[in-house]
Amino acid sequence: MVESRPGRRVVLVEVGLAVSPPALDPAMRLLAIGAEVEAWLDRHTPDAVALERVFAQHNLRTVMGTAQVSGVVMHAAARRGVPVVLHTPSEVKAAVTGSGRAGKAQVTSMVTRILELEVAPSPADAADALALAICHLWRPAAGAGSGQTAGAGALASARPGSTSATPAQLAWAAAEAAARRSVR
Amino acid sequence: MVESRPGRRVVLVEVGLAVSPPALDPAMRLLAIGAEVEAWLDRHTPDAVALERVFAQHNLRTVMGTAQVSGVVMHAAARRGVPVVLHTPSEVKAAVTGSGRAGKAQVTSMVTRILELEVAPSPADAADALALAICHLWRPAAGAGSGQTAGAGALASARPGSTSATPAQLAWAAAEAAARRSVR
Repeated sequence: MVESRPGRRVVLVEVGLAVSPPALDPAMRLLAIGAEVEAWLDRHTPDAVALERVFAQHNLRTVMGTAQVSGVVMHAAARRGVPVVLHTPSEVKAAVTGSGRAGKAQVTSMVTRILELEVAPSPADAADALALAICHLWRPAAGAGSGQTAGAGALASARPGSTSATPAQLAWAAAEAAARRSVR
Repeated sequence: MVESRPGRRVVLVEVGLAVSPPALDPAMRLLAIGAEVEAWLDRHTPDAVALERVFAQHNLRTVMGTAQVSGVVMHAAARRGVPVVLHTPSEVKAAVTGSGRAGKAQVTSMVTRILELEVAPSPADAADALALAICHLWRPAAGAGSGQTAGAGALASARPGSTSATPAQLAWAAAEAAARRSVR
């Protein structure tokens, strides 16, 4: 959770990870993560929730779990009247580092500087979430307003650090294009 | 929503579709569908909720939306202590028609006969949901008990009727296998 200040300054409000035991039933994992997200939303009442827009990944099982969690987060935010915005990993990296292809270490380093933290947020997923929230506050449409708060969820299994397409992603893109042609 | 009776009989309790306007913001769509699902769960307090296990599809955007909805449904069920079970489209088709590769018309026809309905459930998504619920009540572990109720969600965009792999699905499977080899 971050808050905007005048002159594009952004300050850290709170950072944390919502986790659930992998051995647990998927529905119970969603319940645990949902409860934590709802507690965050109720504690901070942010002006917006930023989520990562997930694309084709090489592990569809991971993507499905990530999408299920994002559904629960979107639903919890919508029920509280908090707008949900989606940003791509490239948008987030470009916003905080100037390059859409920056690596995880560079994102963490820039987030640490932007928020004037004494120690880098850890693990990298926490830095990713903060970068996502900063990206939202700095989006072109946001103007120079201050006092806005943005919570963000960088879902751990979303692999936001992979900057280049895997063979599977390339194959998927080709297959998707082929499917689009055959439908037409 | 269906209910089991002695001798593998199953009766219809209620059938319906939860829909949301495609033009709406995705989070608001999840809110609308979530509210309808919660109303069903509260009205019927089923013993279980059966959901379709979604695999790689040729349209990842559709799969993501489907997974988000399934996350919201799983969360709503878990919050009420209702177990969520997942069945593959092949399991569902095999359960109601005897063939895992049955077409949509055959599934609808068998659901109509099993539930002794005078008219076929419409649209096909409604018949798919009923087939999923019947599949759950008839699963091998269920024994010959009766009086169990099962609600089911056959998500409209999950394309449960496509029985053969599309070129994109084949490409995806190959790419996923390749990615698995390269990670090892």
